[in-house]
Amino acid sequence: PRDVLHRLLEGLQTADKNGYGDGQHHQGLMLESKPTPVVGIGLDSCVIPIRHGGLFLVQSTAFFYPLVDDPYVMGKIACANVLSDVYAMGAVEVDNMLMLLSTSNKMTEKERDTIMPLILQGFKDCAEEAGTAVQGGQTVINPWLIVGGVATSVCTQNEIIIPENAIVGDVLVLTKPLGTQVAVNAHQWLENPDRWNRIKSVISEDDVRKAYQRAMNSMARLNKIGASLMHKYNAHACTDVTGFGLLGHAQNLAKHQKHDVSFVIHNLPIIAKMATISKACGNAFGLLQGTSSETSGGLLVVLPREQAAAYCKDIQAQEGYQAWIIGVVEKGGRTAKIIEKPRIIEVPAKDTEGELW
Amino acid sequence: PRDVLHRLLEGLQTADKNGYGDGQHHQGLMLESKPTPVVGIGLDSCVIPIRHGGLFLVQSTAFFYPLVDDPYVMGKIACANVLSDVYAMGAVEVDNMLMLLSTSNKMTEKERDTIMPLILQGFKDCAEEAGTAVQGGQTVINPWLIVGGVATSVCTQNEIIIPENAIVGDVLVLTKPLGTQVAVNAHQWLENPDRWNRIKSVISEDDVRKAYQRAMNSMARLNKIGASLMHKYNAHACTDVTGFGLLGHAQNLAKHQKHDVSFVIHNLPIIAKMATISKACGNAFGLLQGTSSETSGGLLVVLPREQAAAYCKDIQAQEGYQAWIIGVVEKGGRTAKIIEKPRIIEVPAKDTEGELW
Repeated sequence: PRDVLHRLLEGLQTADKNGYGDGQHHQGLMLESKPTPVVGIGLDSCVIPIRHGGLFLVQSTAFFYPLVDDPYVMGKIACANVLSDVYAMGAVEVDNMLMLLSTSNKMTEKERDTIMPLILQGFKDCAEEAGTAVQGGQTVINPWLIVGGVATSVCTQNEIIIPENAIVGDVLVLTKPLGTQVAVNAHQWLENPDRWNRIKSVISEDDVRKAYQRAMNSMARLNKIGASLMHKYNAHACTDVTGFGLLGHAQNLAKHQKHDVSFVIHNLPIIAKMATISKACGNAFGLLQGTSSETSGGLLVVLPREQAAAYCKDIQAQEGYQAWIIGVVEKGGRTAKIIEKPRIIEVPAKDTEGELW
Repeated sequence: PRDVLHRLLEGLQTADKNGYGDGQHHQGLMLESKPTPVVGIGLDSCVIPIRHGGLFLVQSTAFFYPLVDDPYVMGKIACANVLSDVYAMGAVEVDNMLMLLSTSNKMTEKERDTIMPLILQGFKDCAEEAGTAVQGGQTVINPWLIVGGVATSVCTQNEIIIPENAIVGDVLVLTKPLGTQVAVNAHQWLENPDRWNRIKSVISEDDVRKAYQRAMNSMARLNKIGASLMHKYNAHACTDVTGFGLLGHAQNLAKHQKHDVSFVIHNLPIIAKMATISKACGNAFGLLQGTSSETSGGLLVVLPREQAAAYCKDIQAQEGYQAWIIGVVEKGGRTAKIIEKPRIIEVPAKDTEGELW
């Protein structure tokens, strides 16, 4: 189904669709007077020159079906994910958010009146945390509950990092651990004996619950500081890791580079024990192959080698979260790969009673 | 259900929600440094001052379930309706559109591959007609097909008409006839003998089909010229007529006025024969009461009395469509009403073989 959706969106692209990598089109940044629609997987934040003052419009939109059972956190996750696409372009000042919401016609009135305000509040609080506000939107009724939104930033050119300048010798940094999809699924399996029986020999219920809490915490976390620090440490390119998994987004980013480079990933930081579950399921998720879908994942940032450690340290200092150097930029044909036996980094390395990370 | 949705969206408003009409807040136009979310029914195009160059961000979003059986036209209608909210603010240069799309999981692969590209194309063509382009969006899978979008304009203040300056003696102009909901429903009833039997004594099948064609044509028509001419003829306020019907949107606009005025509506321009159907159904639609829902309806414009006729004439000259003076602005308490026996204007007044209007 992903391919289908992708093909549909490609329908938005005009005849001039071979724009990527020719030095004229930059992931939606159109330098011609008449912009050409360009929608890339994972690079769905468009950047459009506007009529006034040499400014650019950076916009992203996304909507989601609930994947966690806490409506307030779900609102935050949706908001964080919508913002993440704009942050991936280096734009950190968001001028407005719209919210897209659908109640489910399967909910009772009481369920609706309990759940929907919590989702709204979570979304709104997250927007506020990001220094912006929700000032518009639409709500409809649908069989499935939907929560999503639109983030818009009007920027000067120097607020944007065009993600096409990776050079040989750069390194790849990831700002959140992988494994959100596995954690969310494993948590659902606690209620599904058939599924649970398949993994219970490798993980305890408590570990699943903790991984789920970590995943929720990670998905609800903004990529704003990581984005802001890209300017300080001279990042050459960035994308955020969401539905197409680490490798999918890395490949897409590689494809858009100006220089003959390839990305090689050596390390996979993963929410503790999720690699174990993934293996126990016969790699059904593709977590170790980098194809497991993530929601509101981290930024994958291409940085000069000498800046990368300082970038990670600065994130740790400002947010208290780890970031990891996970790979290198080599000479190549604009592709990305994960080495055969990547190092799995368990996040956190050690479980501390009463603490999440 | 409308009330429920409205209440949900009101949840977006902050403590400072009594902003309307106090001279500080203008339907989302926030003059303070920290904008306050304001979402009004029908006035869902937000206007937000941005950080750069005294500019404003005007944005609207809406999404729809299909209501006509022509996917290409449905795409156009959705696009026209999304744009309409921005046009209602006087902003006619739209810098970007995003498209929100959901295929239905009830469609076969063949249906999907036939229908979705047509919807996309309709949306895209309509955006192009509006002088803008679709440069981003998201597509998901859902039980129901959804089509919608986001329109964004970055404007100088003089591109925007703050819709709060109606004065006693002004008149109300409507730029599209009412009755789209009735026409769409009557057309569906051609396939439903039970329903059709209730109205077949008052209307022919051919008349229903023609009304449906007129409704599609009207819904797919952009409000851009009507919006652009508001500047030329010094409009004092405007809203577009959509889900809450003529009266709902008129009341909402009245509520936001600076002066002690009320709107009194005398004339109801209605797609030919739709008033007859509405009466035959015991006014179930509320068409003559002004509460029948419209999709992508016209602009309801408040104009100085001496400019209104010229405004209507100019629309006719540029577009070949009629517009109508439908009411007056009187002294009052910021309310709107339709007089007891409004004049029904059949649109068109006379049926011309082979012509739509």
